[in-house]
Formats: sequence, structure tokens, C-alpha cells
Amino acid sequence: MTSRKGNLMMVRDDIKVVDATIRDGGLCNNFEFTDEFVTELYKTNIKSGVDYMEFGYKASKELFDVKAYGKWKFCDEGDIRAIVGDNISDMKISVMADVGRCDFRKDFLPKEESVIDMVRVACYINQMPAAIEMVEYLHDLGYETCCNIMAVSQSGSDQLEEALAMLADSSVDVIYLVDSYGSLYPENASDMAMKYLAVAEKAGKKVGFHGHNNQNLAFANTIEVLSYGVSYLDATAQGMGRGAGNCAMELLLGFLKNPKYNLYSLLTFIEKYMLPLKKAGVMWGYDLQYMFTGQLNRHPREAIAFTEEKRSDYCEFYKSMLDNF
Amino acid sequence: MTSRKGNLMMVRDDIKVVDATIRDGGLCNNFEFTDEFVTELYKTNIKSGVDYMEFGYKASKELFDVKAYGKWKFCDEGDIRAIVGDNISDMKISVMADVGRCDFRKDFLPKEESVIDMVRVACYINQMPAAIEMVEYLHDLGYETCCNIMAVSQSGSDQLEEALAMLADSSVDVIYLVDSYGSLYPENASDMAMKYLAVAEKAGKKVGFHGHNNQNLAFANTIEVLSYGVSYLDATAQGMGRGAGNCAMELLLGFLKNPKYNLYSLLTFIEKYMLPLKKAGVMWGYDLQYMFTGQLNRHPREAIAFTEEKRSDYCEFYKSMLDNF
Repeated sequence: MTSRKGNLMMVRDDIKVVDATIRDGGLCNNFEFTDEFVTELYKTNIKSGVDYMEFGYKASKELFDVKAYGKWKFCDEGDIRAIVGDNISDMKISVMADVGRCDFRKDFLPKEESVIDMVRVACYINQMPAAIEMVEYLHDLGYETCCNIMAVSQSGSDQLEEALAMLADSSVDVIYLVDSYGSLYPENASDMAMKYLAVAEKAGKKVGFHGHNNQNLAFANTIEVLSYGVSYLDATAQGMGRGAGNCAMELLLGFLKNPKYNLYSLLTFIEKYMLPLKKAGVMWGYDLQYMFTGQLNRHPREAIAFTEEKRSDYCEFYKSMLDNF
Repeated sequence: MTSRKGNLMMVRDDIKVVDATIRDGGLCNNFEFTDEFVTELYKTNIKSGVDYMEFGYKASKELFDVKAYGKWKFCDEGDIRAIVGDNISDMKISVMADVGRCDFRKDFLPKEESVIDMVRVACYINQMPAAIEMVEYLHDLGYETCCNIMAVSQSGSDQLEEALAMLADSSVDVIYLVDSYGSLYPENASDMAMKYLAVAEKAGKKVGFHGHNNQNLAFANTIEVLSYGVSYLDATAQGMGRGAGNCAMELLLGFLKNPKYNLYSLLTFIEKYMLPLKKAGVMWGYDLQYMFTGQLNRHPREAIAFTEEKRSDYCEFYKSMLDNF
């Protein structure tokens, strides 16, 4: 068993905070953020000491109608530059690309022509070969790369070991542990993180964590895995993200001891931009229906539908989930 | 370092779940629950496998005007019996009594005349001698006893060691670790729990945990300390409790592996009784103002006032908290 790195009083210089508000939060509002919102979040993240800001997805324009989504589903170079210029800040910029749902050979410029620094490749475990092909292509273009293996709480441990071994042999920089269904408890999450870390450290790679708040554990799991050496930490303003949402950035910044992280700028952003978003009816966050899917280790799609229909017959919903097991 | 007891797949027969909805939740609505609410919660707790149900406080009628509060601030024997009769169930009944705010010599019957099984004595660390006097008196009357030392996150570790040693020498059955300000992280909470456990186990006593959700960690801290051997676990329906509230019973019941614990009965109670309570304007639960007091390790009183005034100027509030540090 790997031991804890550092303690609750120390700065861990290897930590990188990744703001995924636009990317995961975009799943709650169809990526329809105003330019003012994104610009102010960009400035806020810089002031808060955030290390990476994820602008959204690089989704295929052949698979998805550009008119049906906000622009951050596609993250055109020009749209990012309209916000960040040449991004002269120390904060890096990332985008996510889903295996099978992007045209990576067409839609990525060589790194020296792009303001994007890191590409996060998201895949299911059966898509590992395709993910690695993408990672290698993007690495060769000059980008930092992550691989987020989704839904690992439903994978066998043999399968996961093989996937990690494949990533260890690849050019990927960061391997992400993703608690897609918010089903992990801190004890599971840290056990899994130690598996990821053992493989990654040998191969000179870093490990990241992306939590979901179905059981109110996104923040707890994040700080638990970080204590064992996970260094890339995803968070979003007020936990905005699909379904139960993610680790709240304000909780994470309040926890981290490095004085470069600053809570106050984020609070002003939340007050001015996040509260109106909630008031306008954009929905996310912990509630019983998400707790059920987390406890049952299932995709939140039924719970999201329950939320959108503004239902409150939790018992009926719970019974229907057990019927569909 | 004590190691974890059991694992995530096992039943731990030493676990006792304590429902504190009426007691801690009563701080949100002045203890004004309807008899129907309390009766249905009692029945629900029995069906859910809950081990103890706490009915409220035994507060002094000399210090507090009985007309100004609901009856569960005083927990008269007759009022409890009106709900539970002779309590022929396996579930035990507890009440809380605050050092210095109760008339314990006057207000407790001998155990054989009372339907109450356990008395939880709450005190600040400087009140240990008075707490132990109460514990001994109530123990001699025939009750199981707990001691909840409050606000330990602000106590020196020497002071805490002395308090634990005093309790080890007393007749108390259960020593409670209480995260009064919701300031503990799972790593702190488990370090402290191990201190409590080391002392308690030697003296043949049990350890309990009562969390607060200021940093969304009440459930996470509860399952973390239980993994090290804490066995009495406080929770409330939907986390109802002062300020940010407590560990949610539905999260805890969903986590525990003992088949005696049953989530479904609680869900029907939540749907029928808790949702209307929230709708009627009773306020509790995680929000930024409570996160601040948790992060700053402070009493939530200013955050509760902020909530009651329905303010949303979080930044101003945060600055005022820093000014008053």
C-alpha cells in the first residue's frame, strides 16, 4: 500500500487544479454560456491560481449539428482565441475529445498554431486502442495529453490492469481516474488511485481524478486520492456538471494549502455569474435521484430525465430503478 | 496507526445507527414537529433498522420557557410515551442533555420507570468535570450514557487527551467525536477517531461520531471514521440539522452492508414528510456561508443569521468573517 504524500499542513507542488466548468457544466445548459461568462471565468481562474481551464469538447461537426449546441461543444480555435487572445497567462488551456465522437485528424491544428495546451481523450475501456491512437496522434502534434477512462466502476479489474498497462506504454502524460457514476467511496477511490499511481509512476506519468457528486463524495474522494499522490484534480464552480455535478472548486481551493490558490476571486464570480445561472433554471447538484444511481453504480441518465421532468416521486423512481437492475 | 476494521463488503455487527432528526433537526424549526411527523419517523426508523432514535433535548424548564419551544426541547416522559407507548421495538430511545442547561437531578426518572434508554451528555471541553458528574448520576439511575465533547477542533491536543482520560475512568458507555463546526477533513477526522478509539477500547467503551456538513463532508467523515472502528453513527433524514446539517441517513443506510438496514422505508418518509418541511421554509443544508465557517473552523452562528436574513452577498459575508478572525 502506497502511503500518503505530504500532510494536511503542507504544500504539494505537484498539484494541478483543472477547472472543467465550461466542459462538464456545458452538459447542463447545452454549452450555451455567454462570452461574458466564459471571459470572466477565464480571468477568475487566472486570479484563483487554477492551472488548467477546460473550454469544452472538440465534438465532430459531422455527428453533431453546430446549430443545435453552444460553441463550446466544438471549441473552434477562433472561439477560444476570442476569449483568451494568445493566452499570455500561466494557466494552460485544455479541451476534451471523446473517442468516436470527434474528427481529431481534421479538427486539431499542430500545437504551435494553437492556443490549446492539453487534450483530454475520453473513452470507455473497450475503446482503449482507439484512445491510444488519438493520444499518439495528438502527442505527435505537440499537445500534452490525458486519457480519461470512463465508467471504470463497471469494469473488471483484469480489464483495468490491461488498460493501464497499455497507457503506461503510450505517450500519454496523465491518466485520469474517473468516477463516472459517483459510485466510489473514498476507500474504493483511494484503492483504485493507488493502482493507477503504481503503474503511472513507473512510467513517469501523472494521475488525475474526476469525481461526481451522486453520493455527496466528489470533494471527499478528490482530497482522499490526492493524499495518496494523485496530482491533477478536476473541479467546477459550484460543482456545476452533469447530473449531481462535480467536485466544487470553492471547496477544493479552500482545502489546498498552496498560497497561489485564492478563493476570493472565485466567490465574486459565483455571486455574479453562477447564482443567476441557477436562478435561470439551469439544474445540477446532489439530490436523491442521483444518490440512487450512485449507490446502484449506474449511468445517471434516468435520474437526469427525472430531474428534467421536475418529478418528486422519489419512491416510484427508486422502485423503477430496482426493477431495471 | 490503528488499521481499518473490516472492509467495504462486510457487515460490522458493532455498528449502531443513531437517528438524530428530531434533536438536531429541531434546532431548525424550534422543535415544532407535529405528532404525526414524530410518530411516522419512529415507525420509519424501526422499519429501517435504526438502532437508536433521539427524541430531543432534556432542557431546563427554569432556563427555557416551555411556551417558546416545541415539546421536543424538553422531552417529557409523557410526550415520548404518547408516541412510542412502552416502545416494544428493538430500537432504543435516547435524549440529549446539555451540561449547564438541564436540571438532570430533577428531570430524569430512574431508568426502570422511563422509556428512555440512553442519555447523551453534551459539553464543551472545559465542562468535563460537570459532564462526568452527570454521566455518573445518569449511569446510577440505570441509563446507557454517551458523552459528546463539542468543538474539539478548537481544543488543544493536551486538553483533549486529559478529557479522554477522564472519560476512560468514568462510567460512560460511548465517547462521541463531534465535528461541531464541520471543519474536519476525513484525514483529520480519522486521526482524531484513532485517538478516541485507543483510549476507549482500553477502557471497554465505544466511540461515536457526529458530523456536520459545512464542507459537504459529513457523510464522508462518518464512513471514514467507521472504517477505523467508530461504531455509533449519527445521521438525520435528509441531513436535517442546524446550519449545514448532518450526515444524511439515506446516504448512510445506502452505504451500510448489514441487510437489517433498509433504505426504502426512509424514502417514503422523506417524500411524505421531509419534502413538505423544506417547502414550508424550514432551512438547513450545505451552502457557501457554511463552507466559510467550516473552512475557518468557526461556530456557524453568523452563517445561520446570514441564511435567516436570506442574504446572497456571499463575498461581503466572507470578508466580514475574515475581519472578525
